[in-house]
Amino acid sequence: MKHFLTVQDMAVNDMVALLEMANKFHLDEYKLTKQLFSANLFFEPSTRTKMSFIVAEKKLGMESLEFHQEMSSMKKGESLYDTAKTFEAIGANVLVIRHEHDEWANELSEHMSIPIINAGAGKKAHPTQSLLDAYTIYQEFTTFNGLNIVIAGDIKHSRVARSNAEMLSKLGANVYFSGAPEFMDETLPFPHISIDEAVEICDVLMLLRIQHERHDQFSSATVHYNDHFGLTVAREKKMKDRAIILHPGPVNRGVEIDSTLVECERSRIFEQMSNGVYVRMAVLTTQLLNWGIINENHIKKCTETYPEQRIRNMRFVN
Amino acid sequence: MKHFLTVQDMAVNDMVALLEMANKFHLDEYKLTKQLFSANLFFEPSTRTKMSFIVAEKKLGMESLEFHQEMSSMKKGESLYDTAKTFEAIGANVLVIRHEHDEWANELSEHMSIPIINAGAGKKAHPTQSLLDAYTIYQEFTTFNGLNIVIAGDIKHSRVARSNAEMLSKLGANVYFSGAPEFMDETLPFPHISIDEAVEICDVLMLLRIQHERHDQFSSATVHYNDHFGLTVAREKKMKDRAIILHPGPVNRGVEIDSTLVECERSRIFEQMSNGVYVRMAVLTTQLLNWGIINENHIKKCTETYPEQRIRNMRFVN
Amino acid sequence: MKHFLTVQDMAVNDMVALLEMANKFHLDEYKLTKQLFSANLFFEPSTRTKMSFIVAEKKLGMESLEFHQEMSSMKKGESLYDTAKTFEAIGANVLVIRHEHDEWANELSEHMSIPIINAGAGKKAHPTQSLLDAYTIYQEFTTFNGLNIVIAGDIKHSRVARSNAEMLSKLGANVYFSGAPEFMDETLPFPHISIDEAVEICDVLMLLRIQHERHDQFSSATVHYNDHFGLTVAREKKMKDRAIILHPGPVNRGVEIDSTLVECERSRIFEQMSNGVYVRMAVLTTQLLNWGIINENHIKKCTETYPEQRIRNMRFVN
Repeated sequence: MKHFLTVQDMAVNDMVALLEMANKFHLDEYKLTKQLFSANLFFEPSTRTKMSFIVAEKKLGMESLEFHQEMSSMKKGESLYDTAKTFEAIGANVLVIRHEHDEWANELSEHMSIPIINAGAGKKAHPTQSLLDAYTIYQEFTTFNGLNIVIAGDIKHSRVARSNAEMLSKLGANVYFSGAPEFMDETLPFPHISIDEAVEICDVLMLLRIQHERHDQFSSATVHYNDHFGLTVAREKKMKDRAIILHPGPVNRGVEIDSTLVECERSRIFEQMSNGVYVRMAVLTTQLLNWGIINENHIKKCTETYPEQRIRNMRFVN
Repeated sequence: MKHFLTVQDMAVNDMVALLEMANKFHLDEYKLTKQLFSANLFFEPSTRTKMSFIVAEKKLGMESLEFHQEMSSMKKGESLYDTAKTFEAIGANVLVIRHEHDEWANELSEHMSIPIINAGAGKKAHPTQSLLDAYTIYQEFTTFNGLNIVIAGDIKHSRVARSNAEMLSKLGANVYFSGAPEFMDETLPFPHISIDEAVEICDVLMLLRIQHERHDQFSSATVHYNDHFGLTVAREKKMKDRAIILHPGPVNRGVEIDSTLVECERSRIFEQMSNGVYVRMAVLTTQLLNWGIINENHIKKCTETYPEQRIRNMRFVN
Repeated sequence: MKHFLTVQDMAVNDMVALLEMANKFHLDEYKLTKQLFSANLFFEPSTRTKMSFIVAEKKLGMESLEFHQEMSSMKKGESLYDTAKTFEAIGANVLVIRHEHDEWANELSEHMSIPIINAGAGKKAHPTQSLLDAYTIYQEFTTFNGLNIVIAGDIKHSRVARSNAEMLSKLGANVYFSGAPEFMDETLPFPHISIDEAVEICDVLMLLRIQHERHDQFSSATVHYNDHFGLTVAREKKMKDRAIILHPGPVNRGVEIDSTLVECERSRIFEQMSNGVYVRMAVLTTQLLNWGIINENHIKKCTETYPEQRIRNMRFVN
């Protein structure tokens, strides 16, 4: 992979290598022994993804450059392209970009001499989210083969749904969609089941956020959403013993999930966030290696590690 | 103390221990030898407190995570609770929070597995400000016993007034209030005196900011405020030889204090800001120690210290 | 120089010393071995200058304090003066300031005990931009003597034009202005030539941004600007073989310069941005040395340098 832009660009081997490196970073503390700058260009609001990249960078010993569009030359009409070239020129070694346009990476990717990491592209792609979801699932089941994974919610407007369905089916899982009919996307080749069917068959129930900010008005789908399409307390009781709940956040409590279930025993919602840091460390490091900006000798294990980071060693074999 | 939330939670011993640790950090350079993240969540404008915490964190060798509400998932409706849990999940070791609601800490404090430090809660509490004021007073007088401390201004709307009156009286000072009658709070058990009486008896005159942003409209109290209730040049001349002036900032020059007095000889307004850094280093370190996130071995004295930091060694004994 | 405020304050020796130090920082990696804080106070939008200062600070191992006016006490009415004094009090070792008023530095400079670096003052001065332009020109020609340098565009509203014309003529170049008559400033003692004359005689064509944000309405000068006053593809063909194009950015593509020329062979627009980092490292270091905040022993060469930073060693002799 030249840049890290979409799940479609990734072979199964690439995914497995990233999951294994994430796990390595989860188990022990590593630092890159070279001063490296990451420019984090977020053009849409974000807490989780942005902060997760910043923590990932700092855990690797990198410098984070934060960009505030409102106080930048974009106020004077500067384009994304010229902004990205500017960060490249002043010394960024990698660009992490989130932007509301689906195709923002197209023009950039040909003209940059540093790697670009997609931290969210419109309704189209969010590949680091897919990787962290895959990591969280693997942590639980140590396989993807034969797992029933239901992605439930506003499939049509969700960049997470597309990226995840593709990655998880490539890794061997059976992927289903669930949700209001107007939220389905008929171009995506995955079966559509009801939420009541979903809770009974799933090993992983992946709830999506109703993205009010991407809807012009409330459709019938969002009225009584929880009753018809969401995870209620009654539905949760019907899930298999070991089945888990995922959600990319931020959660609309009481809409796609009953508020009391956010921190229930089978929820892995906060583990997903923790795992996101290690996955993003792996993506950053892999891109820096791929471009020859660092080599293996720049990755140094720190002798004093945090004990809370010592979890079981996992092997990722599909 | 589980979290660092109010002066009411603190015993006199706690206060003295924090003042002594602040002084230790003032005298020599110390670093924490573990990579630690502080998430600074400021939901109200701040220069002094926020920057002071950030400098404190960096002086301790910690990583500061800055949060920008406008570009966060709060734009998508995420609550303070879920935002705080997110920062905990992605690796924050401590949360520093300022929020306009008096009681923001209530829900959070039960559910967090990392310490919370109150950097300002509505009109209710601002305990690190109280500590830095106490530190500045002790630096001057090396005791609190018998000092006459007048807190003058908008007592009713001031979180500083409440926290400070409680801390300083616990430490042994005689606390008085002064200001326009509509600014007084009859529920607080401290005598009310006029500003003309105040300047004659006080050892410490602590002026508060007229908080225009918390008043719906200008009351009669803010018209000609300086003349009737503020520190004029004429009043300053009546103060005792060694009496000092404090103000938590930002100063409304010409309102609570004549502009020429802000940097006068008896003003300790900028010393307060400098001291705030050391006090916050002590609060951060103490909370990390209390929660077992670090131990004493993680606090390392640096051999090369800044000469300007060498001030006299103070002992805090009440 | 007490503060770093205007080109007028600088002797030719000062300029040459800064260019030489910038080159030293360009060739090898250096760090300051003392914890030092820079407060970056930007009151106007900026990508290049602000990020360039931050990268410069981090490359020197300094701590950067970022200031967000909208979430600061300036929302409560605090002045620039009191804000600057606050940063000084909480531990800043240097202030980097951009502000829309031409004369913002006047009041500050007398009352600060730390150096101030001008990162842009209204329409008046932008001395670090001048230095980086000079550095870029010297990198190309290894002399300034006898070079024809044309500064083309909105001279009247440009702080870059004023600072650059003064610095480059002091260093030995022949400086010309070009542009629409209403953009000229008759108080500046440099000849005015047409853009068609300019492209034929110049060694350096320095294009300025049409600053829409400083114009109340579009004047006749901005309609068909590119045709009458800008660098078109046809005009570029008439330039001398070794002549180069500079632009301080952000570029209005298609206005002062044809979009296809921004990254053409004779453009040094992105090199200017890269060079800005080294020049700002030199300005920061020089100011810290001048004020005795560091001495020469605090500047340490790192043994492992980045190979891409190894460019030819230049001597700056005018």
